[in-house]
Amino acid sequence: MENLTPIHTVGEFELKSRLLRAIETHRSSTILAAGDDAALIQPPVGQQLLLTTDQMVEGVHFDLTYFPLKHLGYKLVTHGISDLAGMNATPSHITVNFALSSKFTLEALDELVAGILYACDDYQVDWVGGDIAPSHSGLILNISAVGFAHQAEIITRKGAQKTDLLCITGDLGGAYAGLSILEREKRIFKEAPSVQPELDGFEYILQKQLRPKARTDFHTILKEWGITPSSMIDVSDSLASEIHQICKSNNVGARVYEERLPMEQIVIDTILDLNLEPTTIALNGGEDYELLFTVPLDQYDHIKNNPHLTIIGHITDAEDGVILESRNGNEHPIQALGWETNEHS
Amino acid sequence: MENLTPIHTVGEFELKSRLLRAIETHRSSTILAAGDDAALIQPPVGQQLLLTTDQMVEGVHFDLTYFPLKHLGYKLVTHGISDLAGMNATPSHITVNFALSSKFTLEALDELVAGILYACDDYQVDWVGGDIAPSHSGLILNISAVGFAHQAEIITRKGAQKTDLLCITGDLGGAYAGLSILEREKRIFKEAPSVQPELDGFEYILQKQLRPKARTDFHTILKEWGITPSSMIDVSDSLASEIHQICKSNNVGARVYEERLPMEQIVIDTILDLNLEPTTIALNGGEDYELLFTVPLDQYDHIKNNPHLTIIGHITDAEDGVILESRNGNEHPIQALGWETNEHS
Repeated sequence: MENLTPIHTVGEFELKSRLLRAIETHRSSTILAAGDDAALIQPPVGQQLLLTTDQMVEGVHFDLTYFPLKHLGYKLVTHGISDLAGMNATPSHITVNFALSSKFTLEALDELVAGILYACDDYQVDWVGGDIAPSHSGLILNISAVGFAHQAEIITRKGAQKTDLLCITGDLGGAYAGLSILEREKRIFKEAPSVQPELDGFEYILQKQLRPKARTDFHTILKEWGITPSSMIDVSDSLASEIHQICKSNNVGARVYEERLPMEQIVIDTILDLNLEPTTIALNGGEDYELLFTVPLDQYDHIKNNPHLTIIGHITDAEDGVILESRNGNEHPIQALGWETNEHS
Repeated sequence: MENLTPIHTVGEFELKSRLLRAIETHRSSTILAAGDDAALIQPPVGQQLLLTTDQMVEGVHFDLTYFPLKHLGYKLVTHGISDLAGMNATPSHITVNFALSSKFTLEALDELVAGILYACDDYQVDWVGGDIAPSHSGLILNISAVGFAHQAEIITRKGAQKTDLLCITGDLGGAYAGLSILEREKRIFKEAPSVQPELDGFEYILQKQLRPKARTDFHTILKEWGITPSSMIDVSDSLASEIHQICKSNNVGARVYEERLPMEQIVIDTILDLNLEPTTIALNGGEDYELLFTVPLDQYDHIKNNPHLTIIGHITDAEDGVILESRNGNEHPIQALGWETNEHS
């Protein structure tokens, strides 16, 4: 049995200095990282500042019984910076706040911090501030992220027009499929703790759930392929709700073709095994961290047969609604669901 | 009995749009406020970006049995931007994240939001983003704040030298005294719910606890009086711990004179009534949101008899430690205490 140190045996300042000690910076724009009242950052000349914030709550966004803390730290950063990728900006700096129950151990905190630092290294972002406070319940993580971009490069949710093509990066449903496998193994473990978890073959979907990547690489892909989306949004909630956001922001409708929704075979197989509908999960599973965007028709040559994206439909008039056309040609309105109905806990 | 609406009866998107609806902006630098993946801000030419983050946890930083939600919203903003005042920068933008239990009502959320907006108006900062998530315990609020300043104006914790004068704005211990009165009335109410709370005469200290102001005004005072501090820090934790931070950052010591600690008579009277030591509370009470700073001796003419500040001591060699000289001439080491020992709950 390991010798673990509950954080309540360590003081606030000791805890904070333990975090500060770990932080090294990657960016020349970082003048002063954590350690003063505020971080100091030199904005690149002529660029705009992008600022976003998000949170992850134990029992709502993650379950510590199967979520390794190092992965959680990585996923927190992905979650925080994905919004900036969704505006075609490069994230450069983050702050992270921890609310921890007193039973949380220093060793667990170190794992979490290691995951955050690993992600910072991967994404080349600097962790420049944060706070630790006691929590009377579980772990609550807050992240804010900053990035800079030239105004001409920034892509907002606004700009989609009728006949624009609706496109998505990567594939869908993997994070939900991974979560389902983890939940299944948790139930089995509760009933029969001696049974070894069966996770072989599920590596792809487990990674999608436990260590998803933000699409900060897509900025370069757009440049290389000469694509200028008319609008863009990151798919952190669910594809369905993000399509609704695009339509609402632009007062347009959308038609999505079921047969075009990109899904990996392992994702489809897993979802069918669970007696669920793959299309429902592609639309509402959530946490895919891909980018949804619209492209004017005259750029069709740049996006057809492009391995980095899939055309899943097109923009229509607002009166036509947000519609899924199924494989057999039927039309179904697409619903946007929030956390009140797809809470992960 | 009022008709209240628990938030679990409202969807995530309805909740978020309720927040977004309320937000108006004050600053021309705000290109895009809440409503997209990230906020867009135009950094003033030639200035540096300051970024800070903080959190307030129910049962740790506030007790909703006596803390009006509108005041809590105001105090959250004060708490978030005080760090920027502590670097002599003007806060310009904030983001706020809410984690709410499902029993929280829409009406309560509206009060909280009203307090945040009132503070935004007061401080002329723009609220440009945020998130709402369910919480399995109480209310947890996270704030990030952004400001801009010319490099030459920014004052960090680093720079204090031996013989510099140690100064503080405003007065000390008021927030703790106010908290003590509220805690006393809570106990009385529990024992005898029919007894009316006695809060007359305590307006000053209640305001210090419930609706403290960040010293964003001090930037202008420094300019007007021609004072250029060598180091500065905001006193959100406690005077004792902030003095230690200054000393640690500069590898110096400090000598503080008990008789110089600025305290209002109502604060002293309240603390004595509670059988506590006023000096202990001035040093360790916390939440005063004043600014602690050091000034080179050659600026003495600018700070003597200055109504906006009090000289409480001076910087010494590191070997001399961090010392309180009491009224009777005795020396006591000053201890820095974190939340492990002065938790408010």
